[in-house]
Amino acid sequence: MNIGILGLGLIGGSLGFDLRSQGHYVLGVSRRSSTCEKAIAMGCVDTAGIDLEIVKTADVVFICTPIGLIVPKFAELTTHLPKSCIITDVGSVKTPIVEAMAPHWQNFIGGHPMAGTADSGIEAAQRSLFVDRPYVLTPTNTTPQSVVEVMAELVGQLGSKLYYSSPENHDLAVSWISHLPVMVSASLIAACMGESDRSCLELAQNLASSGFRDTSRVGGGNPELGVMMAQHNRQAILASLKQYRQQLDEVIGVIEQEDWQALEAKLTDTQKWRSLFVE
Amino acid sequence: MNIGILGLGLIGGSLGFDLRSQGHYVLGVSRRSSTCEKAIAMGCVDTAGIDLEIVKTADVVFICTPIGLIVPKFAELTTHLPKSCIITDVGSVKTPIVEAMAPHWQNFIGGHPMAGTADSGIEAAQRSLFVDRPYVLTPTNTTPQSVVEVMAELVGQLGSKLYYSSPENHDLAVSWISHLPVMVSASLIAACMGESDRSCLELAQNLASSGFRDTSRVGGGNPELGVMMAQHNRQAILASLKQYRQQLDEVIGVIEQEDWQALEAKLTDTQKWRSLFVE
Repeated sequence: MNIGILGLGLIGGSLGFDLRSQGHYVLGVSRRSSTCEKAIAMGCVDTAGIDLEIVKTADVVFICTPIGLIVPKFAELTTHLPKSCIITDVGSVKTPIVEAMAPHWQNFIGGHPMAGTADSGIEAAQRSLFVDRPYVLTPTNTTPQSVVEVMAELVGQLGSKLYYSSPENHDLAVSWISHLPVMVSASLIAACMGESDRSCLELAQNLASSGFRDTSRVGGGNPELGVMMAQHNRQAILASLKQYRQQLDEVIGVIEQEDWQALEAKLTDTQKWRSLFVE
Repeated sequence: MNIGILGLGLIGGSLGFDLRSQGHYVLGVSRRSSTCEKAIAMGCVDTAGIDLEIVKTADVVFICTPIGLIVPKFAELTTHLPKSCIITDVGSVKTPIVEAMAPHWQNFIGGHPMAGTADSGIEAAQRSLFVDRPYVLTPTNTTPQSVVEVMAELVGQLGSKLYYSSPENHDLAVSWISHLPVMVSASLIAACMGESDRSCLELAQNLASSGFRDTSRVGGGNPELGVMMAQHNRQAILASLKQYRQQLDEVIGVIEQEDWQALEAKLTDTQKWRSLFVE
């Protein structure tokens, strides 16, 4: 197939690598010519340019821009493509994107490949980035079955684990396991720094070890990414934050009441439950 | 010196290894003869037995029992020792222990070596466990300087980083960086499992990755340890939990108000602040 990739960063570039290696012809678009040149030189794409026209022969176009540009770029893109072309995106939040785009393009399907590295940009692109990683597709009632089938085949070629979900369930699920942890973890760092006794704060900083390191890791991550999550997934993140606060209040309650049996039962549950999420 | 070690588990056994290698004569006490035999065979102690009498010639005695037994064992121990003997403990919470013991023994000083492994028991004891790890001593106004000096020398021989603190500041500091993270992390697991839509919960479990893994790690730990922290450090943990909840409320507030500048400022702070605690 001819595959268009709009946005040649970590995800777009890495998709290009693996789709080319499966025999597809990959057409890249980037805002910068220098990125196009790099992508060609690295072997991420067969050809690339700064003009959207370049993808007009594509059978499938992946929109891999930063999340805030997905809908605007989609609007531009549709003026260049035949109706038969499948459009998908790789945004990490799906409801607002699917709501904005699905009504305007019959062959649209939202997607979210859950892979990444700490780095970004075309230089960070790598082969086999998506192998054994989840790739969520979010078809709606009106998505043609043929579109789902083509995308499922491509996701299979990437070596990803394919999941289907409604856009809403996807957004709540990623809020639980990805966006909520950022807010929980950032609040931990902020609370510790709020300690007003300077000698106590210094001691805490000196004593902090693996427990603090792990629990605070995602709260010490890229601020722009955290804001992006909250902005684009606001409803789900607020719902999960409020349910989290209820859990926290329960923990505070049992410790206040010195109900050690209840606390042990709770921590026994969480020990058991964690293994349902991660090994 | 003659060093007594009461309680031959991971900490007691590891202390024995390193103090013996510094030329001290180490006398161990355990409730079980089989543990005494293992400790001798492993080389953790020079001699060991189940009777407290065995440490009566010690210059310094480390109480390394589980935290709930420290005060009762101390009371028994004092009937066997000359007043010149230094008694210290390795409990992870200091205020209740220091308050219970310091008034009854002039040469008492609380301590907390912050090292450990996932394993416990004499079989888990290892050499050099305390090297480059913090060791907090919590002298009070009435602790003789000579006692502080002897302990500082021993801590130096272990290769630990020595810190001094009041018992109260120690307990609040470990609450911030060790006990609070457990409750924060356990609440995350509990909140996620509270998702009532089964397909959303299953998707979340399938999508959970390194962010969830790290943030949930200490909340999925040993329930008895978590209860022990809360029981023995109740006041400090409640104080830190309530300040944490305020931070969480602030995060919820800025997301509700869509005040993205404020959220970015907060996450920029937490990114910067984290490096004050861990590298």
